[in-house]
Amino acid sequence: MVDKIFRVNMTDLTTSVEEVPEAWAGHGGRGLTSTIIAEEVEPTCHPLGKNNKLVIAPGLLSGTVAANSGRLSIGAKSPLTGTIKESNAGGTSAQLLAKAGCKAVIIEGLPKEDKWYSLAITPAGVTIKEETERIGMGNFDVIKSISPEHDNKIGILTIGQAGEMKMTSANISIQDPDGGLRSCGRGGLGAVMGSKKIKFITIDPEGGKVDIADPAKFKAANRTFAKALAGHPISQALGAYGTNVLVNIINESGGLPTKNFTQGQFADHEAISGETMVDLINERGGKAKHNCHAGCVIQCSQIYNDAKGNKLTSGIEFESVWAMGADCCVADLDCIAEADRIMDDIGIDSIETSVAMGVAMEAGVLEFGDGVEICRILRDEVTKGTALGRIVGNGTGSVGRSFGVTRVPVVKNQAIPAYDPRAIKGMGITYATSTQGADHTMGYTITTNILNVGGQVDPLSKEGQIELSRNLQIATAAIDSTGMCLFIAFAVLDDETCLPALVDLLNARFDIALTIDDVMSLGKHILKLERKFNIAAGFTAADDRLPEFFYDEPLAPHNVVFDFTAEEIDSFWNF
Amino acid sequence: MVDKIFRVNMTDLTTSVEEVPEAWAGHGGRGLTSTIIAEEVEPTCHPLGKNNKLVIAPGLLSGTVAANSGRLSIGAKSPLTGTIKESNAGGTSAQLLAKAGCKAVIIEGLPKEDKWYSLAITPAGVTIKEETERIGMGNFDVIKSISPEHDNKIGILTIGQAGEMKMTSANISIQDPDGGLRSCGRGGLGAVMGSKKIKFITIDPEGGKVDIADPAKFKAANRTFAKALAGHPISQALGAYGTNVLVNIINESGGLPTKNFTQGQFADHEAISGETMVDLINERGGKAKHNCHAGCVIQCSQIYNDAKGNKLTSGIEFESVWAMGADCCVADLDCIAEADRIMDDIGIDSIETSVAMGVAMEAGVLEFGDGVEICRILRDEVTKGTALGRIVGNGTGSVGRSFGVTRVPVVKNQAIPAYDPRAIKGMGITYATSTQGADHTMGYTITTNILNVGGQVDPLSKEGQIELSRNLQIATAAIDSTGMCLFIAFAVLDDETCLPALVDLLNARFDIALTIDDVMSLGKHILKLERKFNIAAGFTAADDRLPEFFYDEPLAPHNVVFDFTAEEIDSFWNF
Repeated sequence: MVDKIFRVNMTDLTTSVEEVPEAWAGHGGRGLTSTIIAEEVEPTCHPLGKNNKLVIAPGLLSGTVAANSGRLSIGAKSPLTGTIKESNAGGTSAQLLAKAGCKAVIIEGLPKEDKWYSLAITPAGVTIKEETERIGMGNFDVIKSISPEHDNKIGILTIGQAGEMKMTSANISIQDPDGGLRSCGRGGLGAVMGSKKIKFITIDPEGGKVDIADPAKFKAANRTFAKALAGHPISQALGAYGTNVLVNIINESGGLPTKNFTQGQFADHEAISGETMVDLINERGGKAKHNCHAGCVIQCSQIYNDAKGNKLTSGIEFESVWAMGADCCVADLDCIAEADRIMDDIGIDSIETSVAMGVAMEAGVLEFGDGVEICRILRDEVTKGTALGRIVGNGTGSVGRSFGVTRVPVVKNQAIPAYDPRAIKGMGITYATSTQGADHTMGYTITTNILNVGGQVDPLSKEGQIELSRNLQIATAAIDSTGMCLFIAFAVLDDETCLPALVDLLNARFDIALTIDDVMSLGKHILKLERKFNIAAGFTAADDRLPEFFYDEPLAPHNVVFDFTAEEIDSFWNF
Repeated sequence: MVDKIFRVNMTDLTTSVEEVPEAWAGHGGRGLTSTIIAEEVEPTCHPLGKNNKLVIAPGLLSGTVAANSGRLSIGAKSPLTGTIKESNAGGTSAQLLAKAGCKAVIIEGLPKEDKWYSLAITPAGVTIKEETERIGMGNFDVIKSISPEHDNKIGILTIGQAGEMKMTSANISIQDPDGGLRSCGRGGLGAVMGSKKIKFITIDPEGGKVDIADPAKFKAANRTFAKALAGHPISQALGAYGTNVLVNIINESGGLPTKNFTQGQFADHEAISGETMVDLINERGGKAKHNCHAGCVIQCSQIYNDAKGNKLTSGIEFESVWAMGADCCVADLDCIAEADRIMDDIGIDSIETSVAMGVAMEAGVLEFGDGVEICRILRDEVTKGTALGRIVGNGTGSVGRSFGVTRVPVVKNQAIPAYDPRAIKGMGITYATSTQGADHTMGYTITTNILNVGGQVDPLSKEGQIELSRNLQIATAAIDSTGMCLFIAFAVLDDETCLPALVDLLNARFDIALTIDDVMSLGKHILKLERKFNIAAGFTAADDRLPEFFYDEPLAPHNVVFDFTAEEIDSFWNF
């Protein structure tokens, strides 16, 4: 099947299927969403206006049997950060889109009438339908109302109430293999979908098959690749405890931001740790190991049941547990899981929203530790779009601005996640320089700063951090183009068979002859392309900075500040 | 008396009196506030954090008998725009500060304890006192609690509840000669004062006398100057109807933004016009002509009484009447006057807040035309700092972001005032290029676009607008340094005796030999200095743009869009 571009014009409610332009052929995932946005979106446009576009692209290896290749990339100009944005997640849609022969969906324009729509994608193209019955629904009800009649095999992308209300922390949720949700969480892409009045998108489960140019070579490469992934000790730890294995590790490092980034350790860390979580899951008949998409050999997701044994949430991640737990001082996993479920249902980024709650606590809107009030605000304020709900739903920066708080942990208006840049300095470089605002997944230096994967760089020293973040950001941009989960990075860094196997997978899929250098060049190209967009949108080096308080307020227990000079940070871009 | 710099450090609660550095000697008003901020404030600092400074400076001619020289400049990095900011107003404080020998007050740091303070300024310097009883008070009560025991002669600068809550539309109010208020309205300087926990500042009425180097020359120049001012027909129209004389004029031009900038004329313009207002004032025993500071020969202020003949508000300006009237479709002067009084009392910019209400109306928070609800929101929400009150009190951009509205009339996050840039294109250039966000007073092309003062430039044509805005912005920066009211500009442009007389006033005051060219060079220097600060703060040409909808949505009745290219706008800075 030859891949096509599926284009949807919401202004005149037309769709088309187009040939893939030569210049886009070698791109997939993030590389493709960023290429299309850079080419077709005016960088200074209003992110919620008619000139922004929402681009959805499976990775280069999506739809194949390659291990861990089921990530879907969604991109736009972000209403949260104002930068170019790509966010990716698992679920079944990347594989179904690829099998439908869709290289990317480009959604442009805004409807003229005040009506809602849905999109149905099949190998033949896209159909636009008016939608009424599911408007105002949370994501779980949307899925429940569509999925069962298709034996849960249909692909679904959906926005909750937050996206409908164009809240800038709204995410886009993707159905996973068990009818649960995965989220393209960061940067408010759900608001862009909401601005275009699209409540949900379905993808036909009866698509075709992705062509593999050299099946034998592909199969061999995949065997090596999957073995490298499955054999790495970090993969195994992730499988055993989920990403939440990091609570105790990051706490031990002194870099676990606590009480709105005023401390580096959380006294009650044991109560929210991955170890405690897994015990609880096992006790209640949940699932400690679960995959977010078919073909994953790591399985870092879980199914978390409530005290009565009913499924509460799946895929509760370390960064969400940290944000509600340590940062808001809520030492109660059930409360955190409940809030996580509500956020999934509303369709709002759990990192952005929980860090926002921490700032609201500092402002006195609610008390530190009050997880019940967090759930109430989510349910009664955010879901209903009250004034407070809007403030919270528009993210951490919004809460800080609304209440005049100065300790607001954001870069380019996006919340800083679970790793304090004072005590884990490599992460500070990633937050500052990322083309997409503060985002740990853009250059995850925890690998080498904390986990001793790919070598060792002292987290408390400035030495080597810029190079580390740069190399990881370049590699990540490339990985995000393949449809691969970022967690392949541990094996890529430590197992010398892994990266060649990944390159072989790409070569076997497309009958090409990429080298490792080509893949790194792709990563560099993507970063520079994204940065060029941001510069045209008005961003400068002054935006590549952490908030003042990281330079001024020493973080216990190491009593360290973030001490990179402007010149040092800017040297990141010397490549 | 030799002028000094009065410095206040709120961190350690100390004050000092310092010699005026050589480089600051030739500056006053805006030129001095901007010079000090550019020199002492880190451009990327958080505007509400410890590294911002609040600078208060009378103009070069303040404290003398020169006509119309009583404007006080206040500057800081703006929490609303993020740019450098100067806002000036009348009242008695400029003259009293100058007579106290104070060239500028520089307030820096943030108190360590959660306590409020007041400052008392005398010729000997500044005293810091802890303040408790007036916290939570509106501006009128603050003045009433201080002024009478000083026979209303004491100078008072005060913030209302908005400033206490650090709302980014909070202004700083200045007592006028009748115990009324004038406001340094734009850019949220009241939030900076609030961040430093200063509720009010008093200025000793028993200061000394400003030295005049050549009294005879000064007297002669002032006579010529005052005659030119008083004789100009626009001065006379302003005296007769106040600035609100413009409602009918701007409506006639088709450039009166109506219903959140969707139309260029307001059907009910007669109901809110200056002519109607003056009839009402006279009927109720108010005052149609009133001066905001001693020595004003134009007297564009009024005292507006309610239906029972009690004073409601003074100095109700065209831009405020327009914003609540045409932009929010409230055709009721009493309702507008009541809202104006509440805003003065809370201490919040009436342009920013009223334009914010228009955007809230578009978002469906309240109905267009519902002036009663405007007053309720001001009283019950903004004053009390509820979530909705915070959203509104943080300005037009805040309302737009909070509710996902795309038709948000701001530049650099500051609300566009009463002149639509599509139908009066010179104003569009001023809004786009101003160093301080959208602000009509920065380069008031209405002079030449509409009033045929200083020549004629067709408001609907692009021709000549950039040069017009440039010349006016340069002249304005110079005028804002003298302590003169901007309304001298009409006479300056039309009467050839006026500008030489102003230059003579400066020369006679200081025993110097400025030429008209020197004054224009000063204006250029100030603009470039301010722009340099903004660039270091992260602003680029992409910020010198109007919102998208001005380019896309034609404005009735002329059906025109704003059609300057990026390159054309950027050519503004070619000087």
